[in-house]
Amino acid sequence: MTTNPHIIGMDLGGTNIKAALLDQQGNILAKKEIPTQADQGSEAVIDRMVGLAKGLHPQGGSVLGVGIGIPGVLDYSNGKVIFAPNIHWRDVAVKALMEEKLGLPVYLDNDANAAALGEKWCGAARGGQNVVVVTIGTGIGGGVIVNGRIYRGSGGSAGEIGHTVVMENGPQCNCGKKGCLETLTAAPAIVRMAGEAVGAGKSPLLAGLTTIEAKDVFAAASKGDLGALEVVEKAAYYLGMSIANVVNLLNPELVVVGGGVARAGEMLFKPLRKRVREWALEVPAETAQVIPAQLGNDAGSVGAGAIVLEEQGLLV
Amino acid sequence: MTTNPHIIGMDLGGTNIKAALLDQQGNILAKKEIPTQADQGSEAVIDRMVGLAKGLHPQGGSVLGVGIGIPGVLDYSNGKVIFAPNIHWRDVAVKALMEEKLGLPVYLDNDANAAALGEKWCGAARGGQNVVVVTIGTGIGGGVIVNGRIYRGSGGSAGEIGHTVVMENGPQCNCGKKGCLETLTAAPAIVRMAGEAVGAGKSPLLAGLTTIEAKDVFAAASKGDLGALEVVEKAAYYLGMSIANVVNLLNPELVVVGGGVARAGEMLFKPLRKRVREWALEVPAETAQVIPAQLGNDAGSVGAGAIVLEEQGLLV
Repeated sequence: MTTNPHIIGMDLGGTNIKAALLDQQGNILAKKEIPTQADQGSEAVIDRMVGLAKGLHPQGGSVLGVGIGIPGVLDYSNGKVIFAPNIHWRDVAVKALMEEKLGLPVYLDNDANAAALGEKWCGAARGGQNVVVVTIGTGIGGGVIVNGRIYRGSGGSAGEIGHTVVMENGPQCNCGKKGCLETLTAAPAIVRMAGEAVGAGKSPLLAGLTTIEAKDVFAAASKGDLGALEVVEKAAYYLGMSIANVVNLLNPELVVVGGGVARAGEMLFKPLRKRVREWALEVPAETAQVIPAQLGNDAGSVGAGAIVLEEQGLLV
Repeated sequence: MTTNPHIIGMDLGGTNIKAALLDQQGNILAKKEIPTQADQGSEAVIDRMVGLAKGLHPQGGSVLGVGIGIPGVLDYSNGKVIFAPNIHWRDVAVKALMEEKLGLPVYLDNDANAAALGEKWCGAARGGQNVVVVTIGTGIGGGVIVNGRIYRGSGGSAGEIGHTVVMENGPQCNCGKKGCLETLTAAPAIVRMAGEAVGAGKSPLLAGLTTIEAKDVFAAASKGDLGALEVVEKAAYYLGMSIANVVNLLNPELVVVGGGVARAGEMLFKPLRKRVREWALEVPAETAQVIPAQLGNDAGSVGAGAIVLEEQGLLV
């Protein structure tokens, strides 16, 4: 019996490395998660990733390659991580080191591009030609698909929608600038604005909690808490402005919004779509559907697997 | 003696049609300009364009094709103008009609894309792979080059940087929205802001003029007129915000700024580059050079000629 070769996808995070063995339809055949232990240095982490890949490699089966999604700036032509602050890496030749130890092709991309490729492979953007994928969690990542291929830009950093400025002299961002989308729509921004609503006595439902998470804000909003509703509306307002600007510029057929914050569902998407329609021109507003991502908890490792297909020209 | 086939480029404007016969290096061998007379209807205008092309076609020489830059929304796959408000066109099958009457291949693109292609062909973006070209005149047009090819988006409307929102509840835009870049940086915006500066008694040099044009504002600013300087700084501020957002998203190697307003030169480019550096992330800010367009008065017809090369896969 012969089967199509499988794929290994790995999501290298600051806390954990998640890995999955996938078939070419994106079905997860096996998965494993281990702590990153970034403090032991890049060589130790690479050894752990090699061990993880070997453990997932099917006995007697073949594997097309290993894709790794990495939260950082990459040198694509040399397969290196230039800078990945979460895991304290600088200039690590991941591709060469892993290929030598593993004897399999290894491909890297940043985690936002991996998420976009995953949605194109087997999620909300299947077969999409011009697609923008926005992932909203602690930060905001973006991946841009142009003419059916991932678009990385001239310096490998394309897709930074989270750091487009949407408010003059807005809140301070981790990147050093002010008023980036991230400071108004990412999970910490939602929590900060919720705290302000509590302080102003506007949010009875949130006032009772000892700590507030973004999901609490959406839950309170769905129960009609006015302060929480205002926070959600504000987050959707700025996300809508930013997405409308991208829609005017790139005229994509799909904008896919994922990550923890997007799990709020229609509570977020309804005001978001209203704002995009309000701020985008007629033609691009009609072209672009704004829809939720479909890959859930395993988006990272499935997306990383999609890197292998993209690099081998198999993702159409 | 054999020569390489020539190219005809035509810039279809609301007032005039400008046409040029070009060699494959973008040199203008002959040019002609006639009134558009849009009020006579699309058929009459097409006949005039056919006549113009025939007049430029070299005796005994060959022509690769005719490129037409059109200020409107196009249906690329069918060679139609969907909507061109300046010349009151709706659903005009320009390509088919002209090819039949002319016996030459005819290619259309919107004028902003043509400007971008022209700069790539023989202007400031020669050989560029990922380039954004912004043309600032009465309005603001944008053309996006991705992986060396013009990028039109899923509905043919990509590149609308002029309608990205940069100011919440900003000035009213012709498009119906508020706070678009166009309302803060295009020539009429500069004139409007200069009028406000005069009204506030801040601009002695402009106060003496009966009518103010954008070039007068730049001239006054270069002589140290404080009101005019403030206007230029404000226009550069919002243009810089918008370009920084595009730079974060697309990480291009070049941003080319052209059109009448860009003729202000360093007076505009100096504060503009400062703002882009301020608002773009480090990697994309370092990747992107912000430079003036090189094609001047003939940008429209030369850019239209570049459409022919692009469509025939000859523009590298």
